[in-house]
Amino acid sequence: MPSYTPPIKDAQFILHDVLKITQAQVPGYADLDPDFTGAILQEAGKISAEVLAPLNVVGDVEGCTLENGVVRTPTGFKAAFDQIREGGWPGLDMPEQYGGQNMPYVDGTAVGEMFSGSNQAFTMYHGLTHGAASAILAHGTDAQKDKYLPKMIACDWTGTMNLTEPHCGTDLGMMRTKAEPQDDGSYKVSGQKIFISSGEHDMSDNIIHLVLARIPGGPDGIKGVSLFIVPKFLINEDGSLGARNGVTCGMIEEKMGIHGNSTCVMDYNEATGYLLGAENKGMRAMFTMMNEARIGVGMQGLSQADAAYQNAVIYAKDRLQGRAVTGVENPDGPADPLIVHPDIRRSLMDQKSFTEGARALLLWGASMIDASHRADDDDAEGLVSLLTPVIKGFLTDEGYDMTVQAQQVFGGAGYIEESGMSQYTRDARIAMIYEGANGVQALDLVGRKLAQDGGKHVMAFFAMVKDFGKDNKGANEAFDRDFLEPLKTASKDLQAAGMYFMANGMKNPNHALAGSSDFMHLFGHVCLGLMWARMAKAAQDALDGGASDVAFYETKIATGRYYMARRLPATGMHLARIQSGADTVMALAADQF
Amino acid sequence: MPSYTPPIKDAQFILHDVLKITQAQVPGYADLDPDFTGAILQEAGKISAEVLAPLNVVGDVEGCTLENGVVRTPTGFKAAFDQIREGGWPGLDMPEQYGGQNMPYVDGTAVGEMFSGSNQAFTMYHGLTHGAASAILAHGTDAQKDKYLPKMIACDWTGTMNLTEPHCGTDLGMMRTKAEPQDDGSYKVSGQKIFISSGEHDMSDNIIHLVLARIPGGPDGIKGVSLFIVPKFLINEDGSLGARNGVTCGMIEEKMGIHGNSTCVMDYNEATGYLLGAENKGMRAMFTMMNEARIGVGMQGLSQADAAYQNAVIYAKDRLQGRAVTGVENPDGPADPLIVHPDIRRSLMDQKSFTEGARALLLWGASMIDASHRADDDDAEGLVSLLTPVIKGFLTDEGYDMTVQAQQVFGGAGYIEESGMSQYTRDARIAMIYEGANGVQALDLVGRKLAQDGGKHVMAFFAMVKDFGKDNKGANEAFDRDFLEPLKTASKDLQAAGMYFMANGMKNPNHALAGSSDFMHLFGHVCLGLMWARMAKAAQDALDGGASDVAFYETKIATGRYYMARRLPATGMHLARIQSGADTVMALAADQF
Repeated sequence: MPSYTPPIKDAQFILHDVLKITQAQVPGYADLDPDFTGAILQEAGKISAEVLAPLNVVGDVEGCTLENGVVRTPTGFKAAFDQIREGGWPGLDMPEQYGGQNMPYVDGTAVGEMFSGSNQAFTMYHGLTHGAASAILAHGTDAQKDKYLPKMIACDWTGTMNLTEPHCGTDLGMMRTKAEPQDDGSYKVSGQKIFISSGEHDMSDNIIHLVLARIPGGPDGIKGVSLFIVPKFLINEDGSLGARNGVTCGMIEEKMGIHGNSTCVMDYNEATGYLLGAENKGMRAMFTMMNEARIGVGMQGLSQADAAYQNAVIYAKDRLQGRAVTGVENPDGPADPLIVHPDIRRSLMDQKSFTEGARALLLWGASMIDASHRADDDDAEGLVSLLTPVIKGFLTDEGYDMTVQAQQVFGGAGYIEESGMSQYTRDARIAMIYEGANGVQALDLVGRKLAQDGGKHVMAFFAMVKDFGKDNKGANEAFDRDFLEPLKTASKDLQAAGMYFMANGMKNPNHALAGSSDFMHLFGHVCLGLMWARMAKAAQDALDGGASDVAFYETKIATGRYYMARRLPATGMHLARIQSGADTVMALAADQF
Repeated sequence: MPSYTPPIKDAQFILHDVLKITQAQVPGYADLDPDFTGAILQEAGKISAEVLAPLNVVGDVEGCTLENGVVRTPTGFKAAFDQIREGGWPGLDMPEQYGGQNMPYVDGTAVGEMFSGSNQAFTMYHGLTHGAASAILAHGTDAQKDKYLPKMIACDWTGTMNLTEPHCGTDLGMMRTKAEPQDDGSYKVSGQKIFISSGEHDMSDNIIHLVLARIPGGPDGIKGVSLFIVPKFLINEDGSLGARNGVTCGMIEEKMGIHGNSTCVMDYNEATGYLLGAENKGMRAMFTMMNEARIGVGMQGLSQADAAYQNAVIYAKDRLQGRAVTGVENPDGPADPLIVHPDIRRSLMDQKSFTEGARALLLWGASMIDASHRADDDDAEGLVSLLTPVIKGFLTDEGYDMTVQAQQVFGGAGYIEESGMSQYTRDARIAMIYEGANGVQALDLVGRKLAQDGGKHVMAFFAMVKDFGKDNKGANEAFDRDFLEPLKTASKDLQAAGMYFMANGMKNPNHALAGSSDFMHLFGHVCLGLMWARMAKAAQDALDGGASDVAFYETKIATGRYYMARRLPATGMHLARIQSGADTVMALAADQF
């Protein structure tokens, strides 16, 4: 069975050596010294490794079952959920007023990666509750907040998001679910929603569904969509649970992975709902949480890649097969371990340099969310908004590829479910799809985010890369050659791609959109290049400062060097694809396919 | 449920317009005129689309079951196998002497792609029988051939290949299964083999296992391995079936995909076996079929990609979501079909340009196998031997990626098993692993094939690319610009990579091997670039010659243009990775991972 080792030291390195969070001018950050974050990560790591990880395979094998309207989660899930609840984890970064611990989001993200890495399907139950609670926090009335948040933040009640219908996923303007106003101010919600993660289960007393629906007579399309709170059990005046509401789980989907999470078809039949936020502003309410939700999915891509990588390393050190081409390394054994072989190394280094770079990008993004929410930093908000589709799309595409590479290290055993490696691949696959498929992320990036506020944020990104180069050039020749030069080249490729869009996208937007996925990946590589340059700089500073853990910091620099030499050259390819424009992409009529 | 349309027209185009097989000086090719191959492909296509494709999902859902030593295949498999058998398909390219039809391998390959594309797990039952029969054909005594081949070629008896043991996959020198010589000239074979595809099932009267094992007292390592024929039921003098032999299926593996094929743990307990070929020359006997077997697996990568692509196209035309950015295209509908969106196009073009280019490479490779076997063409044998790891590794890596892309077109529905798209991904995954994991293919390419016969074959490949450019330059400006120039650039990248290996691999072989996977992909892209240039040329010739199906040929050229502009620039990235050498790849000690 696969194991999971929480990446505590790595997260600490990023939080403290790279981001230096205690020095950031963000309310709450001053408290986050290494001892404090270390203690939290230790605790979260413990529960991840000891409680959640062993249930990962159980969830995959057993899945969820629906019988007489009741959904049963896999063996052990409910007990583990109780532990998560009792530990107060779901409320880590929620307001104290509603029972949370008011810690910054960056802390919640570092913890979230461990939960997700040890058991993605399980973590979605409280992850989605967090998202639903955030929506109520942002858009609810005081009465709604008082009514729902304490229970949801405690995870006594869980939450869901209901967007998709059978005929509309990305294009929510076609939504049909309707909400009829009632005399008492409530609504009767009717319609069918599909792909509802954690839609029904046996781990909480109540489930609070957030449902997008149309109020009859409203505007057509996306502008006539409102958001509703629809509890599974109605709530009495005294806060106790009342009658069962008109919402049922019609079926559980058979999926490629995340079997431990119940993906439900939800049928609403005159269910009582309560408007959340303003009428016809449902999409705005949903979009408030979009950055966080999408960053959370990017995190899943990273977390599955890291979990798979860890097990690939164990296997590569353990499995004896063949001899090193440069001479026997394990003379007492019948063969050398896999890890001596250059192509296995190449694969492990691909994985390692991705996951560590991705973790830095993720936590940097999370710190900008904090700066935006806690310090009203508009620049941080603009930049993280720009980077959100990159974090979601690039980290899940690449994260998936890394799970495939990790599985490949196992050879035939990787294809057998017993090794657990197939599950990482199958689970990671969903992250490329939900919360906006990655093609939609690319469209959001190129079609909206790039030009937002007059292109101010992408300019700020380029300035940041340039300043980093200027500030750090000349101190260390190897650093200049191995990090600053490749970063500069990659950043120039990204700028050239942006220039191409500007020059050609005006006359034909297809010239921009045909290169959108390539641009997202190009941007992602530049981000990871920047992260690696920053990490290498921090590691070098630590070494220069006489840090005791020399091996750790040297490993960081060597891993970064790999990324810059071996992964970053992808930017040139993406640029060439982008610059080839839309003509070859759009050449065929539909019937020529 | 997914559908499957056999690519008859495309295969015909490659066989006749591109490869012009009837003009090739290969015995048997003169008969393969378009009417003849068309008739065969029509028949094979019919059985693929109507019989095998509908069973694909059945096989995935039901899988195989083992009870009291008996393995049951999914509902409908046996009846379909009877149809395949009655149609004489397994013997298509086998000698008439043993009941085959003696057709060229290129024809069998075109047919095989359809069988595999419609149902990979099913097709493995007769595919492996074909492989085992080929081994007996190449290495058996006349008596062995007479005894086994007629039954195996008819698929009354099926065959298996037994190589892997729990502790050794790639490194077969560590094998422990032993074969004790008996007084009557037979052997008693004992040991455990794992990952045995079609190892036990209910579709044939007998199963002929080919088993690698050690004769005690022989040399250590790979040089002490011999190949044995071990029938499930012993065969009486009169050809009737006798006693059950000492070989049983211990368990069926739970796998990520190809559930319809029984992947067995096979236990040999003093099973009676008969030496096939010479003592201690078992690996040589296995390697005889290696090129064909590996090309067959490359075919699986292509075939799953094509099947997935076909369904992605259907969905993209049917599913209404969003509006074209350049203006509404479906004004009467609530939204435009997915296929209007540039990033969906990009994805479909990636898939289409891959599958069609890959099919050309596959059939070209198969035609070289024919030239080698039927016309003793040593140059063809050398070239196909060089290209075999490329066909296996590149076509399965890329083929898998294409199934992932096809699944992505479906959005959320792609993750739900009901759509059938997950199965293509899960089934395609195995092809990257078996018959030598793709890292081993890359090693074979760079470590062995490149330098084979003094590098003669890779030089021949470069000369072929160069000659094609010289012969076709200047006739058509667009062709020069869109095809010859990019092909030249890509081929130069490949040559530069080869030069890098020569210059650096001598002093440290890791410099070559650390770039082996990149080299395999770089080579694959150049091969597909050459294939597309040849296909575009053939299509242009047809248009210039007044061919009636203008749309077909124009589509070919447009698809080729996409490949050259959008896919071929990957060669620069692979070259950069290769030229970065082994230093960053091998920098870490094992405990730094």
